[in-house]
Amino acid sequence: MRNLFFGFGAGVAVGAGGCYVYLTLVKPEPRRVGRGGVELDHPALKHGVPETDIIRVYDGYVAAYDYRTRNPKWVAEHITPASWSGEANRERSDFFPDPEVDPRFSAKLSDYRGSGYDRGHMAPAANHKDSQKAMDQTFSLVNISPQAGKGFNRDYWARFERFVKELTDVAGNVYVITGPLWLPTQQQADDAAAAAGGAGGAANGGSSSKWTLTHDWIGKPPGLVAVPTHYYKVVLADTRGDSGDAKQPPRGNKQPLPRGTVGVGAFVMPNAPIDPRTPLSAYVVPLEDLEQVAGTSFFPELLGDARRREAADVAAAGWRAAGMSQLKPFERLTMKQAFAALPPPASSMTIDVEASTTSASSSAGSAAQAPKPPKTPVGSGVAHICEVNACRLPPTDFFQRGSGGGGGGSGGGGGGSRGSSAPSSPRSPR
Amino acid sequence: MRNLFFGFGAGVAVGAGGCYVYLTLVKPEPRRVGRGGVELDHPALKHGVPETDIIRVYDGYVAAYDYRTRNPKWVAEHITPASWSGEANRERSDFFPDPEVDPRFSAKLSDYRGSGYDRGHMAPAANHKDSQKAMDQTFSLVNISPQAGKGFNRDYWARFERFVKELTDVAGNVYVITGPLWLPTQQQADDAAAAAGGAGGAANGGSSSKWTLTHDWIGKPPGLVAVPTHYYKVVLADTRGDSGDAKQPPRGNKQPLPRGTVGVGAFVMPNAPIDPRTPLSAYVVPLEDLEQVAGTSFFPELLGDARRREAADVAAAGWRAAGMSQLKPFERLTMKQAFAALPPPASSMTIDVEASTTSASSSAGSAAQAPKPPKTPVGSGVAHICEVNACRLPPTDFFQRGSGGGGGGSGGGGGGSRGSSAPSSPRSPR
Repeated sequence: MRNLFFGFGAGVAVGAGGCYVYLTLVKPEPRRVGRGGVELDHPALKHGVPETDIIRVYDGYVAAYDYRTRNPKWVAEHITPASWSGEANRERSDFFPDPEVDPRFSAKLSDYRGSGYDRGHMAPAANHKDSQKAMDQTFSLVNISPQAGKGFNRDYWARFERFVKELTDVAGNVYVITGPLWLPTQQQADDAAAAAGGAGGAANGGSSSKWTLTHDWIGKPPGLVAVPTHYYKVVLADTRGDSGDAKQPPRGNKQPLPRGTVGVGAFVMPNAPIDPRTPLSAYVVPLEDLEQVAGTSFFPELLGDARRREAADVAAAGWRAAGMSQLKPFERLTMKQAFAALPPPASSMTIDVEASTTSASSSAGSAAQAPKPPKTPVGSGVAHICEVNACRLPPTDFFQRGSGGGGGGSGGGGGGSRGSSAPSSPRSPR
Repeated sequence: MRNLFFGFGAGVAVGAGGCYVYLTLVKPEPRRVGRGGVELDHPALKHGVPETDIIRVYDGYVAAYDYRTRNPKWVAEHITPASWSGEANRERSDFFPDPEVDPRFSAKLSDYRGSGYDRGHMAPAANHKDSQKAMDQTFSLVNISPQAGKGFNRDYWARFERFVKELTDVAGNVYVITGPLWLPTQQQADDAAAAAGGAGGAANGGSSSKWTLTHDWIGKPPGLVAVPTHYYKVVLADTRGDSGDAKQPPRGNKQPLPRGTVGVGAFVMPNAPIDPRTPLSAYVVPLEDLEQVAGTSFFPELLGDARRREAADVAAAGWRAAGMSQLKPFERLTMKQAFAALPPPASSMTIDVEASTTSASSSAGSAAQAPKPPKTPVGSGVAHICEVNACRLPPTDFFQRGSGGGGGGSGGGGGGSRGSSAPSSPRSPR
């Protein structure tokens, strides 16, 4: 009996040990595995898999960086009240080329110098004040894209960023994905003929109108940095799991999101100065359209659910219509151009626009006065983010009177010596 | 003693079984891992990692497909004499949207119809004749990009593809990576002002010249397909491991590569009709420059070695100069434009060009007559691919008299009903 016991013990040790050695040391690992577990052991890849991008993980954000455009593809953040209320100071931060990005594929500080464009943060420095390290990390060039400074990065976009981070007033967890876009515009036949003199175009057919993309690059060839035509943000404010103390109003007297729902919103803005009176809701886009032009799926594990996406997009169409209706007719024209390949607002909007032409110009700037705030269809578990205070932006001088030092810092201003039309301004917010 | 034996056996079973269950079922896998083993378990990615591309593995090729441009990023092939000498027939193949690509991010057959562009293969169908399945798979839209048909896809590019696959005459293993490019051109201040009316441009500085990219898109918004301005191929002909029977000349009477070396070459061509007399060597580019404008590292496990890259690029500069010197002056101008953001040939070339202006036009079309075929510096283990018959292309009518049925098939011709300037021609080679 003692033998049985002893033998069993020895057997367990040998069996477990052998198995461990086999499974962890001997068993051959698949040599190359791509995203999604795709097996890349193909004869064509004998000399290595071509690399075109990199994902960088930092304390406050994760960035996918594209080697061809030398821009971020997407930058994902998780924002909480704590993450943006610390003592970190951007005066101590410096922009830096990411040490993990092959210098051949990285933007350089010199690319921005004198380019006329700001070094625009995708994940804003001000969202990551909980440690100096987290803030410093937002200055990696994997998080930076050339943005128009005056009227955009230092103004309208900064107010938008402020709006987004203050969503932590109504939801315990806010997730944001930010990135650049290159959106073509449709040219009529006449324009097209004039533009045909451009680069390497080919034998295009005789169709009456076509889609053309034109955008600048900065830096020195061959390693140029593409200047985006637009930027997007997809925002997700998750109230699920927040404490249920519903009697207390949310911080900052905001209209709350329905408890237990997820606030969802997608926004697209041109990389250009924006009239400060433009209501944010005019830049609302359906998530579905944004995903198609960006070629990116956002929050796939939550928004892969078609019912959620559709509910959010019904509301998005309504908010966009409401926002557009507050613009003067000529501003609506510009807006149409600005959205480029994003399809025009639904027909319902066209009606709205016609109906509200007389009151449009006077009400611009206050989205709360829009005709009828649309409601996200219930039952989907999502609500459009504009249900939070009708997407009202903070005032233009928010950084001077912001709560708890949201401002300060010279920020952007890659614009240096020669001929920059947008010099770094002492009042620039970020 | 029997007890000891029995107990030991039972112990091994229990130990191994328990270990197996623990290691394969219980032990938590890291939830998300990106390429290169990057750990993506970050709070910002709680609702999933944004997806922007996919890698598809087929019998004859591997393709990385980009969701934003709806084009391949790179397509890698391994070509052997066997792979292109089978009985597969493209008449039996149909183009198809790849079933693994989310339809929201996939090109559609309808995008090409009437666009005026061919559905151009990156991995050519004719390289994969060893099975009908392998050939059929080259018709997946992950392998397709909108190419100018007449004068390019059906002509010069087809001859170039023929040149590449016939490298199996001199090396047992040929590796090719093919993909699209979008190359900006430099505009002078005057042009720039005229073009500034375009899409969402921003506050660009007053610099005297800038880099601008203009290209078309086909299909319907928001899911458009970008039309590349250029295409590249990086070719690697590996003689290492080939049988040492050096007395026998390589098939097809080609100049052989030095035994034991790897032939390397990078080529960039505009997506436009090309004069059939243009020598292929004029489209040679330094690998380093191509990698920077493509934002892609090619064959990193072999060419990551700086010494190899540099040796190949010294030779590339020479071959390019030799090719350019055979062009008429006005053709050289076009060529300069065609390369766009790729830096101009080195100063040595400029001298060559000036020196050979008188003889240029007469010798065009036969690269073998170039002034002095450059040699790859020895000792690096690489040789420039143009050392194989001086990069001489097959004749323009190669598909009619090709060895063993290289031709046939209607190929390209996405150009359909309305206004296509490039209808599917019965003589189109692929």
